[in-house]
Amino acid sequence: MKILFVAGDPKPERWTVPIQEQLPDAEIFVWDPEGPAVDADYAIVWQPPEALFERETHLKAVFNLGAGIDGLLKVANLPQNLTIVRLEDAGMSVQMAEYVLHQLLEASRGMETYREQQREGVWKIHRPIKRSEWPVGVMGLGHIGKRVARTLADLDYQVSGWARGEHSVEGVSTYAGPGQLGDFLQSTRVLVNTLPLTDETRDIINYDLLSRLQPGAVLINVGRGEHLVDEDLLRALDEGKLLRASLDVFRKEPLPEGHPFWQRKEITITPHISARTLRDATIEQITGKIRDHAAGRAISGIVDTDRGY
Amino acid sequence: MKILFVAGDPKPERWTVPIQEQLPDAEIFVWDPEGPAVDADYAIVWQPPEALFERETHLKAVFNLGAGIDGLLKVANLPQNLTIVRLEDAGMSVQMAEYVLHQLLEASRGMETYREQQREGVWKIHRPIKRSEWPVGVMGLGHIGKRVARTLADLDYQVSGWARGEHSVEGVSTYAGPGQLGDFLQSTRVLVNTLPLTDETRDIINYDLLSRLQPGAVLINVGRGEHLVDEDLLRALDEGKLLRASLDVFRKEPLPEGHPFWQRKEITITPHISARTLRDATIEQITGKIRDHAAGRAISGIVDTDRGY
Repeated sequence: MKILFVAGDPKPERWTVPIQEQLPDAEIFVWDPEGPAVDADYAIVWQPPEALFERETHLKAVFNLGAGIDGLLKVANLPQNLTIVRLEDAGMSVQMAEYVLHQLLEASRGMETYREQQREGVWKIHRPIKRSEWPVGVMGLGHIGKRVARTLADLDYQVSGWARGEHSVEGVSTYAGPGQLGDFLQSTRVLVNTLPLTDETRDIINYDLLSRLQPGAVLINVGRGEHLVDEDLLRALDEGKLLRASLDVFRKEPLPEGHPFWQRKEITITPHISARTLRDATIEQITGKIRDHAAGRAISGIVDTDRGY
Repeated sequence: MKILFVAGDPKPERWTVPIQEQLPDAEIFVWDPEGPAVDADYAIVWQPPEALFERETHLKAVFNLGAGIDGLLKVANLPQNLTIVRLEDAGMSVQMAEYVLHQLLEASRGMETYREQQREGVWKIHRPIKRSEWPVGVMGLGHIGKRVARTLADLDYQVSGWARGEHSVEGVSTYAGPGQLGDFLQSTRVLVNTLPLTDETRDIINYDLLSRLQPGAVLINVGRGEHLVDEDLLRALDEGKLLRASLDVFRKEPLPEGHPFWQRKEITITPHISARTLRDATIEQITGKIRDHAAGRAISGIVDTDRGY
């Protein structure tokens, strides 16, 4: 079995050595832009070049080094019937859950106010949080969305979830499809976006959507920058429809110098760090799936390319 | 039945009106420093004056408006055999759990660094957190300590717990008594204090204890200020034994102007807000217990005054 590793890591051996340990009988190759075809059975990729699919024509499956496969689907010559497998969790959902909780508390418990008070040597207690005043709505109920929703529900927040299809999450009120989006937004003050990026979800967080949230709304975007219409966010902040936003993803990353988001006090910017792929967990998951796929066993995480995730 | 409300709330009717609703047959009195004895059966108190116990000599029980009863036990003429009931949870433990997680992420995920980067318009990704590098140890395994420990364990942190007696918490390694304190500290990098304040626990967080934590240690104190020896904390920070500390409680509150804690960048100060008593939940709990006690039913939360909690 031949496996081709195609990701821009400057130290690919950090991946290929443990992959080889997990799959001792496999031949592991690192992508060489100038090299010949290796006739790979499987490719493990992150934002691969078009040349990959020109050269390697016998791929049985491609394993994406991330949960979001919007980058991979953009590759113009991606073969139509190729099996694409997305990363499932691999330590990411728990990181997202804690990141979201951290950003929620920044808003609901006014942690920046307490930091300012410390800088000024001021001791002043503010009104305590009532959970009932901070209902949370999670868009997207995949591995990540579900984990975020459950974590907050376990901490006694009132949590709703919305996704394209029907889902059930313990302790969470779920809504499905465009027809129930209005009810979901009406029940939500803190909107958390974990949607996959598809043609249907691009630009979904626009002025109209933000206007339908409860007063004093908060946005936490850990999905993709293209979900959010940047100027609509600024307008919603200017008009007081939104209290604050925590953004971990942006239409262009790094967020360009001079972008108006940088200077807004109501916006918290983090450089796409809400959840990081953990190498060990990722390698374990992908090599396990390669083993299963090669043996003809079913594997999870296969992308429906029509649906886009 | 006569109930006396003895707390410094400038609007005692916020308490007495809903208490009356819960106990329509009771007579409710607000403490009047100049007034006569009312011959109360029960008192609901927060830091009551000595005059209370001089004047009211037929109290069947005193209900403390907080989980920590160290303030009440300080009252010099507190009758020895009086039944003292502490507040149990009442919405506090979940607040503590989220506060502790927030402060843990400030350390483990370097959130202040990202805030500084934003102020300077810098996009820079730092090494991802590995949970295995941030083992947490929770001192005190009452309602609050257990909830903190479980919340962090649910988020895949490696969590230990230490208390005077034996406890069992799912997913948490527990240690008991002075004999196992050393092992507990050795397994801990992030020390969370939720202990009750007693003669045994006063000054427990001293230089020696802080020196036994894992390298790059972090302290999160949500117990009492008297648990911590202030100058020992500063010394441990100066010597690099401690990376940072999040302090919500202090030996003197408000923390006095000019106290060295105010100016230390490695110390986060919040003004005793990690968990607030929620009035509705508190009233429901205390009136329920008064009803049970008056009917001769057992109630939980009775303080062992010898033990001190």
